Amino acid sequence: MIKVGIVGGTGYTGVELLRLLAAHPGVQLTSITSRKEDGMPVADMFPSLRGHVALAFSSPEKAKLTECDVVFFATPHGVAMAQARELLAAGVKIIDLAADFRLQDTAEFEKWYGMPHSCPDLLAEAVYGLPEVNREAIAKARLIGLPGCYPTSMQLGFAPLLAQGKQLVNESMLIADCKSGVSGAGRKAEVHTLLAEASDNFKAYGVKGHRHLPETVQGLQAIAGRKIGLTFVPHLVPMIRGIHSTLYANILPDARDTDFQALYGRHFEGEKFVDVMPAGSHPETRSVRASNKLRIAVHRPGGGDLLVILVVEDNLVKGAAGQGVQCMNLMFGLDETAGLMHIPVLP
Amino acid sequence: MIKVGIVGGTGYTGVELLRLLAAHPGVQLTSITSRKEDGMPVADMFPSLRGHVALAFSSPEKAKLTECDVVFFATPHGVAMAQARELLAAGVKIIDLAADFRLQDTAEFEKWYGMPHSCPDLLAEAVYGLPEVNREAIAKARLIGLPGCYPTSMQLGFAPLLAQGKQLVNESMLIADCKSGVSGAGRKAEVHTLLAEASDNFKAYGVKGHRHLPETVQGLQAIAGRKIGLTFVPHLVPMIRGIHSTLYANILPDARDTDFQALYGRHFEGEKFVDVMPAGSHPETRSVRASNKLRIAVHRPGGGDLLVILVVEDNLVKGAAGQGVQCMNLMFGLDETAGLMHIPVLP
Amino acid sequence: MIKVGIVGGTGYTGVELLRLLAAHPGVQLTSITSRKEDGMPVADMFPSLRGHVALAFSSPEKAKLTECDVVFFATPHGVAMAQARELLAAGVKIIDLAADFRLQDTAEFEKWYGMPHSCPDLLAEAVYGLPEVNREAIAKARLIGLPGCYPTSMQLGFAPLLAQGKQLVNESMLIADCKSGVSGAGRKAEVHTLLAEASDNFKAYGVKGHRHLPETVQGLQAIAGRKIGLTFVPHLVPMIRGIHSTLYANILPDARDTDFQALYGRHFEGEKFVDVMPAGSHPETRSVRASNKLRIAVHRPGGGDLLVILVVEDNLVKGAAGQGVQCMNLMFGLDETAGLMHIPVLP
Amino acid sequence: MIKVGIVGGTGYTGVELLRLLAAHPGVQLTSITSRKEDGMPVADMFPSLRGHVALAFSSPEKAKLTECDVVFFATPHGVAMAQARELLAAGVKIIDLAADFRLQDTAEFEKWYGMPHSCPDLLAEAVYGLPEVNREAIAKARLIGLPGCYPTSMQLGFAPLLAQGKQLVNESMLIADCKSGVSGAGRKAEVHTLLAEASDNFKAYGVKGHRHLPETVQGLQAIAGRKIGLTFVPHLVPMIRGIHSTLYANILPDARDTDFQALYGRHFEGEKFVDVMPAGSHPETRSVRASNKLRIAVHRPGGGDLLVILVVEDNLVKGAAGQGVQCMNLMFGLDETAGLMHIPVLP
Repeated sequence: MIKVGIVGGTGYTGVELLRLLAAHPGVQLTSITSRKEDGMPVADMFPSLRGHVALAFSSPEKAKLTECDVVFFATPHGVAMAQARELLAAGVKIIDLAADFRLQDTAEFEKWYGMPHSCPDLLAEAVYGLPEVNREAIAKARLIGLPGCYPTSMQLGFAPLLAQGKQLVNESMLIADCKSGVSGAGRKAEVHTLLAEASDNFKAYGVKGHRHLPETVQGLQAIAGRKIGLTFVPHLVPMIRGIHSTLYANILPDARDTDFQALYGRHFEGEKFVDVMPAGSHPETRSVRASNKLRIAVHRPGGGDLLVILVVEDNLVKGAAGQGVQCMNLMFGLDETAGLMHIPVLP
Repeated sequence: MIKVGIVGGTGYTGVELLRLLAAHPGVQLTSITSRKEDGMPVADMFPSLRGHVALAFSSPEKAKLTECDVVFFATPHGVAMAQARELLAAGVKIIDLAADFRLQDTAEFEKWYGMPHSCPDLLAEAVYGLPEVNREAIAKARLIGLPGCYPTSMQLGFAPLLAQGKQLVNESMLIADCKSGVSGAGRKAEVHTLLAEASDNFKAYGVKGHRHLPETVQGLQAIAGRKIGLTFVPHLVPMIRGIHSTLYANILPDARDTDFQALYGRHFEGEKFVDVMPAGSHPETRSVRASNKLRIAVHRPGGGDLLVILVVEDNLVKGAAGQGVQCMNLMFGLDETAGLMHIPVLP
Repeated sequence: MIKVGIVGGTGYTGVELLRLLAAHPGVQLTSITSRKEDGMPVADMFPSLRGHVALAFSSPEKAKLTECDVVFFATPHGVAMAQARELLAAGVKIIDLAADFRLQDTAEFEKWYGMPHSCPDLLAEAVYGLPEVNREAIAKARLIGLPGCYPTSMQLGFAPLLAQGKQLVNESMLIADCKSGVSGAGRKAEVHTLLAEASDNFKAYGVKGHRHLPETVQGLQAIAGRKIGLTFVPHLVPMIRGIHSTLYANILPDARDTDFQALYGRHFEGEKFVDVMPAGSHPETRSVRASNKLRIAVHRPGGGDLLVILVVEDNLVKGAAGQGVQCMNLMFGLDETAGLMHIPVLP
Repeated sequence: MIKVGIVGGTGYTGVELLRLLAAHPGVQLTSITSRKEDGMPVADMFPSLRGHVALAFSSPEKAKLTECDVVFFATPHGVAMAQARELLAAGVKIIDLAADFRLQDTAEFEKWYGMPHSCPDLLAEAVYGLPEVNREAIAKARLIGLPGCYPTSMQLGFAPLLAQGKQLVNESMLIADCKSGVSGAGRKAEVHTLLAEASDNFKAYGVKGHRHLPETVQGLQAIAGRKIGLTFVPHLVPMIRGIHSTLYANILPDARDTDFQALYGRHFEGEKFVDVMPAGSHPETRSVRASNKLRIAVHRPGGGDLLVILVVEDNLVKGAAGQGVQCMNLMFGLDETAGLMHIPVLP
């Protein structure tokens, strides 16, 4: 059994990690830290876990994280990089759900997250935890920076287009019109995500710039092996879970004959967590609710030159905790799907 | 034109007052205070008011409230009683949407609100602002303590039963099972009313005791002219606006022949804001959305001895701001319905 | 492996059965019938099942249900009783999620469901599938009438009070104020459950009389061994899943010293799917979302004579499909919890 | 007083017309037809209208529509064109909320609506009822084809860019990523818009082609005076009212120095129902809820070459009934804002 610790389990990605790991056949939940809630049984904060998780929160001092095999950080940005060196030195692997180990450019990190990076050497070693792109590197890694929720959907949605040697679309003018449920904003007391504010309402936000833009550009450029240009417009949907990304790309004249449906099918062949749907499909976010699946549909309206790619995922699973468990499975030589084959909850 | 000031306009009852008063034909909005937002145009905080309200928030010092004819307090408990004496002395009438002038028993006030009452003499003078019960006193009052949202629905729902000389129901065992939309919790940054927490969810709260219990008991006893016993169980509904109170009362053997439908019809005859629906009706909260109407249906399941009264209101209108405007109309000799005949918004 | 057939898999209880059974370790899904959708892969109707359920709907003629070990009926009322005799004769066990085998009084059945009962002899043999009450009979049964969603919550909520030899509460005046998510109305094209109608709205319905009343009265009387009187008021909550029942009972003078919290704890000791929460708790429907758990909290507001019992369940799981699987486990000698230990999905 | 008739008042645009017209100072509601509901008081179907609308539905035969000054058609497509000739002959003006008089190309009409156009001569005379584009023609018209909800937001959102002599953006590659609340689907009993289906969910639909595409292209070409190319992707949002259109346009090299914020401000100067918000704004749908206002924000992320225009409207008001009343006001020489200055309902 893999001994697992969680740092910061009081947010949504934390409780989702608990839901997934408590039922994982190869895992022993060892400790979960929260300075503020030291001593409180986890199930007192999250009654959904009553009868499933007996653990209590403990302060970091008592948590003995160095005795774990792997530690997940479900914390605000900046926490993981402060503790990473000590844990790695003790032979503990790290999977960070925050942004500390996502952006390889420390100047970009500082610009978007408002703090200097405290361990650039570890950052250089960190592997970006997107298994469908980086599977082999993840298997060998000891430090994972997990992708953000939006970036997962954008990268997997654009990947088949960019991963070809030949350019198929105008890569300098990619557009991602993304919509997220409010759990993406975290379990934080804020006015704008109150039910009375966010319900029966729809809006864009962060059009000027969003932290997930540089991360996605970095990832897409890694996939393409060349510069790309992306406009990313996030929107807030009055629902709890789910991301729907609507991606637009202009087909280049030379690529007009491409069978894009087939291209996507081939690209993701054999992937357990990516479902390329039949031509003409409109994936719904609820079709992946509470599961690690991501679904994609490829459209070319009117047979024209604009490709429209629809991508859905559960932001807390494939967009966060589930992807973390998927990486853990790879890092410890387990079946990649272990503990992750939940059937989506519908309705 | 009545010159109106608002103290504390950044919450939901505040913005609702602005919506009602900005379109009221007999009112001139004069000032709205917020120490924190001094100088910010109201419409910057609430874009719904763009083009309708030109006023900016001002700090209390600048607001010249003593030049108003009436001041509404849409503030946390305790604010109105601190400013009431000065305003009254200046000839300004006061309508308090908080609890400072609701409970006549100062010990009860201190017990439920955790602060001593600072002006018991003014409290003694204050009139409870429930027009369908207290119309004449309101018309002559200079200081109004407006009912809470739940208490409005419970009192108007039980009133016809208790207002008869003869006891019709077991008045020591009244039950009110009430359900409220989350705007009732106010525009406060709290975790439990986040959309991701409160949506697709239902729960009771405060079963042990809720501040609206003593207020309602006081009101019902005033109506009945005798002691009553009430159990009040509030619940949180995943919707923005609306209260639905399901009231239960055991019919006394002597009263079994009463035509309760007719009794309710007579009791509220001529009332513009209380609608006794036809027998067999199930009022919906949306049927009063954004309006000052309260609807009631009377049921006697199986023709038995338990009376079931269904009451709906918009907690922000008839349960707060609208009722305040209704009181204002009475206090200034306007038509009671002035500025209050909005047709409910459906769907 | 138990060979399982499902009749009528296109509704919400059908797709929920599929979610539970497809991941059940002791089950082989053999056939699922729908005359209308003959030949259509189940996953085309419910994309959430893509990659998990390969089965297609088949017309009843092709389905070879007589080769199954057990058949679930997730159909409109009246279907199961038409097919039961033939299946039972072939040695197939039956679990009916509709009402055909719930009410032992055929006159009552005809009154509430508008059709005569076609096989009273089988009805007499049928066992009411509420394991916490009828565990041993279920284990031996070949024909199960599963409780309705509301009745499950009301019966388990009142059971500890009524199951004592001595009367503790006024059993002639029980009240159940119940609130259900809209999935309880089924996957039927109807105006009143459209999102634009039912969202941001709350209402009671069926106050005059509801089919779940006679069923619940029958069940409570079986538990108590004496007549009881119940008023049941259902309400529609703008959420997908979940039932919250708020139960009221007047404590008899002789029973005032009872420790009701302890009584409930003892009554359900050892039950895997009933969670008696600590005193003072307010269970939320989301704390059981997508799981077979039912949670109960016991309140006595102000220490008075009115007991308030709060009960939550997922109407599609413990209120329907999950309870059916729980019965199946008992009927086939499996661990009662097999395939049912899903951790609730929160948020 | 203008005598107004409504044909087909049982849908959402019908009840919204009733809400607006019942409170309109210059209107007398004369008749409302529904063959199916002949004799039923309108307020029995829509209890929100109790106390505000005394009218009953009447069958078309009894309705005496020819005695009206104007008749609104809030009907399925095809109804208005069948009755238009007779009404016009009787001197009655017509405002059609359906599609019969939107598309000038009858072949396009037949292709998208599946029926031949029965009165091309009247179609040729019909004026497209978008006042901010066609104000003068509307004032003189006797037959109005009202824009669809999506087309209103797209046309007003793109108009300032296309209305200039000089091309500013790549007009052959316009993108409209639009999101609508479910009331846009109408008050029809359908499975996919049930709360249990559409709530806590998000999806695109009609990506292959949607009826509002040809209408919008026609309108944009009329504004531009040249061919344009548009890709339109509609999405369903789990909310009742509101449309949010996110529009994308590539700025041409020659136009890079344009001050687009100023351009939009100038274009809509003086418009009462179009609000160009300050630079950097993110309009919310709830900021226009239940009002006739449309709000626009202009963005240019990263100062790059892609323009992002955000547009919100209430699909039932500015996208349907409100726009109809605005046209009526123009056609009868009333103040354009008469009966339309509702302050949006927030929260």
